[in-house]
Amino acid sequence: MDLELDLDQDGASLTAALVDIPSVSGEEGPLADAVEAALRARPHLTVHRDGHTIVARTTLDRPERVILAGHLDTVPVADNLPSRTERARLYGCGTSDMKSGVAVQLRLAATVTEPARDVTYVFYDCEEVAADRNGLLRLSLHEPDLLSGDFAVLMEPSSGEIEGGCQGTLRAEITAAGQRAHTARSWMGRNAIHEAGAILDVLRAYEPRQPEVDGLRYHEGLNAVAIRGGVAGNVVPDECVVTVNYRFAPDRTGDEAAEYIRSLFDAWPVRVLDIAEGARPGLTEPAAAAFATAVGGSPRAKLGWTDVARFAALGVPAVNYGPGISEIAHSPGEYVELAKIAQCEDRLRSWLSASS
Amino acid sequence: MDLELDLDQDGASLTAALVDIPSVSGEEGPLADAVEAALRARPHLTVHRDGHTIVARTTLDRPERVILAGHLDTVPVADNLPSRTERARLYGCGTSDMKSGVAVQLRLAATVTEPARDVTYVFYDCEEVAADRNGLLRLSLHEPDLLSGDFAVLMEPSSGEIEGGCQGTLRAEITAAGQRAHTARSWMGRNAIHEAGAILDVLRAYEPRQPEVDGLRYHEGLNAVAIRGGVAGNVVPDECVVTVNYRFAPDRTGDEAAEYIRSLFDAWPVRVLDIAEGARPGLTEPAAAAFATAVGGSPRAKLGWTDVARFAALGVPAVNYGPGISEIAHSPGEYVELAKIAQCEDRLRSWLSASS
Repeated sequence: MDLELDLDQDGASLTAALVDIPSVSGEEGPLADAVEAALRARPHLTVHRDGHTIVARTTLDRPERVILAGHLDTVPVADNLPSRTERARLYGCGTSDMKSGVAVQLRLAATVTEPARDVTYVFYDCEEVAADRNGLLRLSLHEPDLLSGDFAVLMEPSSGEIEGGCQGTLRAEITAAGQRAHTARSWMGRNAIHEAGAILDVLRAYEPRQPEVDGLRYHEGLNAVAIRGGVAGNVVPDECVVTVNYRFAPDRTGDEAAEYIRSLFDAWPVRVLDIAEGARPGLTEPAAAAFATAVGGSPRAKLGWTDVARFAALGVPAVNYGPGISEIAHSPGEYVELAKIAQCEDRLRSWLSASS
Repeated sequence: MDLELDLDQDGASLTAALVDIPSVSGEEGPLADAVEAALRARPHLTVHRDGHTIVARTTLDRPERVILAGHLDTVPVADNLPSRTERARLYGCGTSDMKSGVAVQLRLAATVTEPARDVTYVFYDCEEVAADRNGLLRLSLHEPDLLSGDFAVLMEPSSGEIEGGCQGTLRAEITAAGQRAHTARSWMGRNAIHEAGAILDVLRAYEPRQPEVDGLRYHEGLNAVAIRGGVAGNVVPDECVVTVNYRFAPDRTGDEAAEYIRSLFDAWPVRVLDIAEGARPGLTEPAAAAFATAVGGSPRAKLGWTDVARFAALGVPAVNYGPGISEIAHSPGEYVELAKIAQCEDRLRSWLSASS
């Protein structure tokens, strides 16, 4: 039996309905089907599908086009379904991250039939898993035109405040070398784990940059996320590898971040494992500034990496703005404040409807 | 077909014959059979068998009894069999560690029919593997009387010099704790790997003791032999475990060694994994002193752990003395100097034959 979504119910009820259709990454099919069917029933929208990613657009030839994007998938269910409402909060897997945001998107898509700006609504799959499965990435390769626009809002949980840009992230392996020997005659060798103490010295002495970028304050971080070394219980080890994760503010490119890490650890071989660029908040761009004015509040910096970086890479300024709470995302006790859903919908409705 | 060992050939040839009967730990059966058969053919010896361990004894009611012990097993063959002779060296798996020593034992057992001291020859299995499989340990539990004596010589490779006693060895885990957090907000947590830097500081500052014990100079060592920590590439880790190996001189008991490690790392939880006691050289004991005088050379301290510690625990003073070279033991290029085999046999023969 096909699931039916009623887009005319209020945002809180719609969120509960979305939460009660489980959609762990890779299993978004039934929810994507329901979203697609509900949107195709609205004649003012043009609907596209790519795998389990659904795109619905108005085509009113407005001078501006904005994008509202959200992911359909959730992390694995943690014995927290079906949803339940308690004291003005809706509990359950995906309530904050980010079916409340998806509910707002769907409400706006269904009911704002004559927006002042053309709108592209993107509902994508596989955000919570390895980057190469990400539905937004796939769409940008298959049908990049569907992602063109002047500004994008990613409905990631941000407690109903604008979170601008995102920090980049880089992982690298730093290797201390030594020389093997029997531990009974350890002075014949050189202990690579002891040598790695000097790598940890650098990490312990690290002072994070907190630069202001386009008016928002970021906060970098540099951490060992793994360490390994050892050959046998009676052998002086000849190698110890420290894996570090550098979170860098968006005034640095990935290349600059790699250069910084190489120079910080210039006494050792450094192997960069992966880099995801950050994104500048871009709130000084006209479309973004109009959004910030309409929505109000005090924009702050987004510290974690999100898909706004993907929009930035496509040349589309983007911010995070959604009713969920990022601090409790992915936790079994995840919830969303019902009032935030209505507030978020109202503010976006005003923005989309008002001519700038 | 049963293998036959000719104990009347010279020590070098006998060593080659022993090496060419592979006897990796756990597979000593054929060699033990051959050793047992050859010894049973000598009417002046009383022969016992426990698994693949063979014991042959003279029973002349001499006032003193000495033990000559050696293991039959080798580390895994490394494409270095059969043996080959080149420029007065015999190459092959087990040449140094310790079939040349076993050859000397067998030559003496077969030919010294009227020793001035009663002699117990022990040929045991599984020395190169986990301690609980050790044939000498098993024999000490099954038939402790067979290991009673006034003095023991362990035929471990020592380049034909007396190596007295052995250092003890202790392994312990030292754990640094932290608090998990997302690396995008790392200041919400505490990085256990960074904290482990302070453990490595202690290791880097360590100054080894080099005490003189019973006239021999020992040299301690303290090394990290393993380190592990890390949860995921985006998580500040909450635990990092450093495994250390402490090699301690025989003027310290195992308990004292553990106490030292606990006090050195008193800022962290310390879990002692295992301790093997060392053994004092005991060269001041009358039987040992007589041996040292007869054999000559300059006794030195044994730094690695050997089964002399097992004899010490049984109340039998013991030293290492064999024709092999410990530095190349366990290496594919292992060899023994043929001249050392003859020298070692001659010196032991003099000692066993002479009345003290």
